[in-house]
Amino acid sequence: MELKLFSTSKAVQNLKHLSKTFQDKNFHLKNLTQKKDRLENFSLKIDEFFYDFSKQRVNDIVTNELFNLAKETRAKANFSKMVTGQIVNVTENRAALHTATRDFTHDHLLLDDLDVISEINRVNKQIKLFSKKVHNNEIKGSTGKSFADAVVIGIGGSYLGCEFVSTALKHSIDPLINLHFLPNVDIDNFGQVIKAIDPETCLWIVISKSYTTTETLANLNQALLVLKNHHLDPLKHLVTVTAKGSPGDDASNSSLGSFHMFDFIGGRYSVSSAVGGLALSLAFGFDIFNRFLKGCHAMDSHALNAPEEKNIPLTAALISIWNSNFLHYPAQAIIPYCSALSRLAPHVQQLYMESLGKGVTSDGQVLENQTGVIIFGEPGTNAQHSFFQFAHQGSVFPIEFIGVVKPVYNKDQAVSKGVYNHQELWANMIAQGQALAMGKDNDNKARYCTGNRPSSTILINELTPESIGMLLAFYEARTVYEGFILGLNPFDQFGVELGKVLASDIRDQIREKNKDKNNEFNSLDPTTKFYLDTLFKGSL
Amino acid sequence: MELKLFSTSKAVQNLKHLSKTFQDKNFHLKNLTQKKDRLENFSLKIDEFFYDFSKQRVNDIVTNELFNLAKETRAKANFSKMVTGQIVNVTENRAALHTATRDFTHDHLLLDDLDVISEINRVNKQIKLFSKKVHNNEIKGSTGKSFADAVVIGIGGSYLGCEFVSTALKHSIDPLINLHFLPNVDIDNFGQVIKAIDPETCLWIVISKSYTTTETLANLNQALLVLKNHHLDPLKHLVTVTAKGSPGDDASNSSLGSFHMFDFIGGRYSVSSAVGGLALSLAFGFDIFNRFLKGCHAMDSHALNAPEEKNIPLTAALISIWNSNFLHYPAQAIIPYCSALSRLAPHVQQLYMESLGKGVTSDGQVLENQTGVIIFGEPGTNAQHSFFQFAHQGSVFPIEFIGVVKPVYNKDQAVSKGVYNHQELWANMIAQGQALAMGKDNDNKARYCTGNRPSSTILINELTPESIGMLLAFYEARTVYEGFILGLNPFDQFGVELGKVLASDIRDQIREKNKDKNNEFNSLDPTTKFYLDTLFKGSL
Repeated sequence: MELKLFSTSKAVQNLKHLSKTFQDKNFHLKNLTQKKDRLENFSLKIDEFFYDFSKQRVNDIVTNELFNLAKETRAKANFSKMVTGQIVNVTENRAALHTATRDFTHDHLLLDDLDVISEINRVNKQIKLFSKKVHNNEIKGSTGKSFADAVVIGIGGSYLGCEFVSTALKHSIDPLINLHFLPNVDIDNFGQVIKAIDPETCLWIVISKSYTTTETLANLNQALLVLKNHHLDPLKHLVTVTAKGSPGDDASNSSLGSFHMFDFIGGRYSVSSAVGGLALSLAFGFDIFNRFLKGCHAMDSHALNAPEEKNIPLTAALISIWNSNFLHYPAQAIIPYCSALSRLAPHVQQLYMESLGKGVTSDGQVLENQTGVIIFGEPGTNAQHSFFQFAHQGSVFPIEFIGVVKPVYNKDQAVSKGVYNHQELWANMIAQGQALAMGKDNDNKARYCTGNRPSSTILINELTPESIGMLLAFYEARTVYEGFILGLNPFDQFGVELGKVLASDIRDQIREKNKDKNNEFNSLDPTTKFYLDTLFKGSL
Repeated sequence: MELKLFSTSKAVQNLKHLSKTFQDKNFHLKNLTQKKDRLENFSLKIDEFFYDFSKQRVNDIVTNELFNLAKETRAKANFSKMVTGQIVNVTENRAALHTATRDFTHDHLLLDDLDVISEINRVNKQIKLFSKKVHNNEIKGSTGKSFADAVVIGIGGSYLGCEFVSTALKHSIDPLINLHFLPNVDIDNFGQVIKAIDPETCLWIVISKSYTTTETLANLNQALLVLKNHHLDPLKHLVTVTAKGSPGDDASNSSLGSFHMFDFIGGRYSVSSAVGGLALSLAFGFDIFNRFLKGCHAMDSHALNAPEEKNIPLTAALISIWNSNFLHYPAQAIIPYCSALSRLAPHVQQLYMESLGKGVTSDGQVLENQTGVIIFGEPGTNAQHSFFQFAHQGSVFPIEFIGVVKPVYNKDQAVSKGVYNHQELWANMIAQGQALAMGKDNDNKARYCTGNRPSSTILINELTPESIGMLLAFYEARTVYEGFILGLNPFDQFGVELGKVLASDIRDQIREKNKDKNNEFNSLDPTTKFYLDTLFKGSL
């Protein structure tokens, strides 16, 4: 990795200077959005993906300087290094090759001695065959019944992305197998899942790279207990997605099969690998998953090849950096005007906050600047009736709207106030961006809206597997670009280690007490002792 | 309303001074949480509700000054005014009497000429009778079949609270009628709901105070279209929750009946009124809803009567003000270690951000200080594998953990690493608070955790209707207290009006185009024209 420190770059100095002009009220969006060529000059489009940043608080001078920043920090060169398998995850000495899982351009990509592309093709072929056999009833449960449900046991990156994509797809495609998610070690998560399935017709998909993730193994044990109690054979009800050679890949651990994941693909970037691929292929068929991969690839190619000024994820990353590091907005909302995208924000929340919520640069220097922002969101118009009061009159946070030109549902539609529901939805989406930008004066200060509140809008044509793939890859590429430009490593997550270590210490204490009820927690600090005493007492 | 301006209060000056000591690293939580009496002195408990703020960045001096602030701003007196029906929603000249919907202490409460308590009792009696008749099959659909599903058509405050409570309850109580939610004007929200129900056995609950909410009426029209297409009689499939005398209360508008809501109860505070009551009673029975109300009332009584220093919602409001206005944290996460509470954060997000995201004080002066913060959250341990990397090493935001001592699921449970899943869940919850507070030095800066990151923990005994009621009322009282102390009106939402006006203008344009395809959008600004042209063209 070639790093030029963000904080000492020339563009950053210029942007700091510029941001002073933008922080006071000299620059107001209401003066800009009426301009004739504003949208044309501050929007980008590829295929069926449109990115409008005309309501961001930027002008030509700012965007020029932002593109300089991208060039100074060699953002595109770093992206290219990532795609070609160089070590961009420097702290863990690994490549980051999620793009290879949907690379329809190259036949080979060598990483040390491993041909990554052919390895991925091998796994995908295996997924295609397996899911086909399940759909054709060639693979059935141990009592001879066909599978109707699949429970995905996996957490974090083994859960959120797949949940987002399957939630989006099932609006337009009726699932062949119903997916359920069991991420949480909370036994009540298990309790809800077990209510919804019939063990005889249920397949359990256990996803863990190392096969040591505490939550996942605990839920696997719950699944095994269910199988045992129903006299069902795990060999016929369990599959694993795991690294080659992990305990889950062990043939002596009875399962229907294991599908490999790789240490050069991080959890939060793994939806397009077997992690998402197996469950999505079971639910919707491999062909749908493959179309999703093609959408991802289209965005990857654009992110890799388009020049800075035409590059959508790179531009979005720069806008995000401008908003967080220069205008000092602490958060960003993602508001899809599309119910089907209801789980996009939780996925991007992980992808983005886990990638960019860092304290140091890639080479270990403590960061002075803000790294990433808080991501949250709910679908519009719901959000308008929830936290948009805050968006219009509270502290400022930028919003990313997402619109879909054509809805899925195309049967009988009522007309209200002279328009169809989908038209009403769009009227609201357009109006919100306007209202945030323009504001409105009012002598009654309780009704006064400052305006000058930035937003972007993404449009896609319709909810196809391809467009969902483009959306996923857009947020991945944007996140990676933002990390590269800020000079931090978007692929590690050392910050979560401490919690794991402390949880392990507490677990040891609980285990000893489980063994011997007379054990007291006297060696612990008073707070931890109180919590564990309460847990064992069973009430406050 | 008696207001003493927050910004000029003596306590605020003292707190500002104090916060300077707390902003540098003189005050580190790792030095405090090991102290013997820290938990005892910085936690509060009533009945089965425990609030631990020992890991907040406060000491005795700070909390004393915070309680002074509550006294100076007459927080408790204002709360009492609210509960007794005085005009606390000053900008709209209304009382705010959500507490009256669960007041088991008083028989009467006069608001002008209306006895609020007997009005509420009348509506609740009506709900009890109606839901009993539905459960006993005395009220059935127009083809003589019993109701199996109910669709709640309502948005914002007519949706989020009810969704939170019903999601929580259904973990422990099997619904008699399945609830579905249709908040969004997005036709694909309708498309998903219609897939999940059978119109013959479905009851539609239309919730809108004024019966003019655009989204709700558009979805009502969709429901009417379904009924018509299935030759079903709306008179037998539709009920309304609406204000007396609204178009939805009109007997000539055929429906099974209407249940009144009142203008002295704001949407986001309306879960315990007919807004939540009808759907919850249909799903779980009126007795369960009544137990939920009792839980709300227990917390209301505490919030009203407990002295400042023992008052849980008031203390939580003060801690929140300390964090936002003095330590300048821009957000707060709500992390229930409990899957059943998965929709608590979206509900509180509305409740809190719509109440406190304001630009002016109650008497119309522009606020200088921050008002409220961004609220977001997902259940733990899921969140640990999502955005907790950011929580440990990125920008600081306080976290509120929620733990439930006893889980719902009590059947077969596996043991993993020597502990049950619920114990593992608690080990993690305890460890996260510790890790955030303590941090950990490491020569490898990528692994260094600063610590000194504040959190609170709420414990409840188990997920009962009563405890869910206490949680709901806790967040309501806390929000109201925070508004009163900051001197703003937590009951209005004028900031959302501008978006509605602009949407209406755009809707007019769309309607004209629907009438005459030759209409062009030439009078509109270029951006709006582009979006509408795209919508009508059906593709980018």
